Amino acid sequence: MIRITLDDLDDIALGATFLGTGGGGDPYIATLMTRQAITEHGPVTMLSLDEVADDALVFACGNMGAPTVAIEKIMAAGQPPAAVLALEAHLGRQADVLMAFEAGGSNSMMPIYNAAMLGKPMLDADGMGRAFPEMQMVTFSVYGASGSPFALASEHGDTVILNINDDKRAEYIGRGIVIRMGARSAKASYPMDGRTARRVAIPGTTSLCQAIGANLRQSRAGNRDPFTALIEMLAGTHYGHAKVLFKGKVTDLIRETRDGWAIGKVVITDQAQGAFEVEFQNEFLVARQDGRLRAIVPDLICILDSEMAQPITTERLRYGQRVTVMAVSAPPIMRTEQALAVFGPVGFGLPEPFVPVEELD
Amino acid sequence: MIRITLDDLDDIALGATFLGTGGGGDPYIATLMTRQAITEHGPVTMLSLDEVADDALVFACGNMGAPTVAIEKIMAAGQPPAAVLALEAHLGRQADVLMAFEAGGSNSMMPIYNAAMLGKPMLDADGMGRAFPEMQMVTFSVYGASGSPFALASEHGDTVILNINDDKRAEYIGRGIVIRMGARSAKASYPMDGRTARRVAIPGTTSLCQAIGANLRQSRAGNRDPFTALIEMLAGTHYGHAKVLFKGKVTDLIRETRDGWAIGKVVITDQAQGAFEVEFQNEFLVARQDGRLRAIVPDLICILDSEMAQPITTERLRYGQRVTVMAVSAPPIMRTEQALAVFGPVGFGLPEPFVPVEELD
Repeated sequence: MIRITLDDLDDIALGATFLGTGGGGDPYIATLMTRQAITEHGPVTMLSLDEVADDALVFACGNMGAPTVAIEKIMAAGQPPAAVLALEAHLGRQADVLMAFEAGGSNSMMPIYNAAMLGKPMLDADGMGRAFPEMQMVTFSVYGASGSPFALASEHGDTVILNINDDKRAEYIGRGIVIRMGARSAKASYPMDGRTARRVAIPGTTSLCQAIGANLRQSRAGNRDPFTALIEMLAGTHYGHAKVLFKGKVTDLIRETRDGWAIGKVVITDQAQGAFEVEFQNEFLVARQDGRLRAIVPDLICILDSEMAQPITTERLRYGQRVTVMAVSAPPIMRTEQALAVFGPVGFGLPEPFVPVEELD
Repeated sequence: MIRITLDDLDDIALGATFLGTGGGGDPYIATLMTRQAITEHGPVTMLSLDEVADDALVFACGNMGAPTVAIEKIMAAGQPPAAVLALEAHLGRQADVLMAFEAGGSNSMMPIYNAAMLGKPMLDADGMGRAFPEMQMVTFSVYGASGSPFALASEHGDTVILNINDDKRAEYIGRGIVIRMGARSAKASYPMDGRTARRVAIPGTTSLCQAIGANLRQSRAGNRDPFTALIEMLAGTHYGHAKVLFKGKVTDLIRETRDGWAIGKVVITDQAQGAFEVEFQNEFLVARQDGRLRAIVPDLICILDSEMAQPITTERLRYGQRVTVMAVSAPPIMRTEQALAVFGPVGFGLPEPFVPVEELD
């Protein structure tokens, strides 16, 4: 059990932007909200999966929508707790512990925010080990926990409770609601007991965010090369393998907010090495160099600015940025056959089969 | 208190198609379903508004979607009751009485179906006195009852509970769900007590459907002119004024399923009298003859085939049909300033102000 205080938030946000692989929402506003919530309500207790009681009721919470919208349309303070409260009212039982459904971007911060606002502990775990664009793309669904019932809340205080018998259809119907709520809703989902969470969740992702953030911060302060330091540090985690794929300048960018997502591709060019292209749907999905596969989901593709190693989200990409593209191997729980069927290349309609990034060069 | 038996269904369906003013969904399939339900579970008890207990819990139920879809995508037998059961589970209380939210088309039949399936009585009342395309276009909303919480159910057994603080926004978000449920959902909505129902509902619309249907049937059998007979009969109701606006042939038809509705216009031509045009959004909204206003919502515009006086729904309109267009004045409760603000011309973005059909020629 550890306590998350104000001093931890910037490191968590920085690491979450890295694990967000371009998505999960820019954590800037969520971090400000969480800072305020902890200032008012005190530090948040974080349990590891080993520490949660078997029969504790766990909700996975966060936001659902398009990150491009999120940077302009700010959440109402009561909106994320409203989703948790609506699901509690529907179930007739209070949640004992909150966790993230995704470990990337603003959605790493939302369980801390909700935990502070509602006076509950949170779990150091999530269902994506990174960010993914669709609700059913979680180890929870892969290993048999149901997304339903789940709650969505808008900034108007409107709430919707969904009971959908299939998590992919839950994504489709839920996304329809999110679009009509203005492409930004708060969500509380995947109600499960502690025993189930231990079986289906990815352990330690909030502390990993914090460790990545601290590593990047220390590299900057100590004038170490941040990319080398991060690769060394990740080698000691269940992610294992990390490497630099490409360095260059953003020379083309196609990005639109479509069907409730930020969809597009970015082209990065280096005069000696040619053109490097990354496709995204909220998150970076596949990286190709001159048509050759360099990395593909669920392995992580991260774009960082080359000078400060600041991870860049899809909605913050700009023409002319000098960037370094990194890839990180996903943990084993995310590379099983069942997992690849949900959030591997086939889950996104990509033509290539999955090849582990450590086998590509 | 009266009993609705198998013998009543065809008259109710025929009258409901007339009051549907082109919308509310073709009642053919709903009538077959209701026939089966009454055969299995027995006749349905129908209470008048005067007979319902002050503290009885009343739900307004029916279907939500595009009628063009409904004639090809048949409801699952358990789908309409699933919406009622989901709302009951959410409220933690069983409904005592069911009523229609609209008195037109298949939605006149659904409370009878649900009442038979669930062993409950129904109310002889509704919120539209006809059919309208949008959820908030009911006297319930106009006179202060809330549409929320309400439930939607799909043919997959999926259910959604909505708590929306504004009924027009409830329509918008609900419609988004209906679209993703395949443009056809069952709905249970506007939970209210009997005292409220007496204040906000339009009385007697199911018996009016039955009386209209019986009148048309008897005219056909007795070789009377059905249009004259219907006008005489409606003069004795709170609808009051009815007349024939135009007779001619369908010479043009634009119809598309857009945003979850059937939207378009039909042109009816007579060589001597020129062109008559009716615009619709699920229901017929406005009738113009050579640009001159002939009838406009909330007054009823009904298109019937000229020979048998069979009301024709928007999705059954075809080139070449010989049709008679009738208009009926809406009851006073539907013509107040508050009512016209919701389902008068301004509610549909029509340029004309409301003019009672009895003042137009």
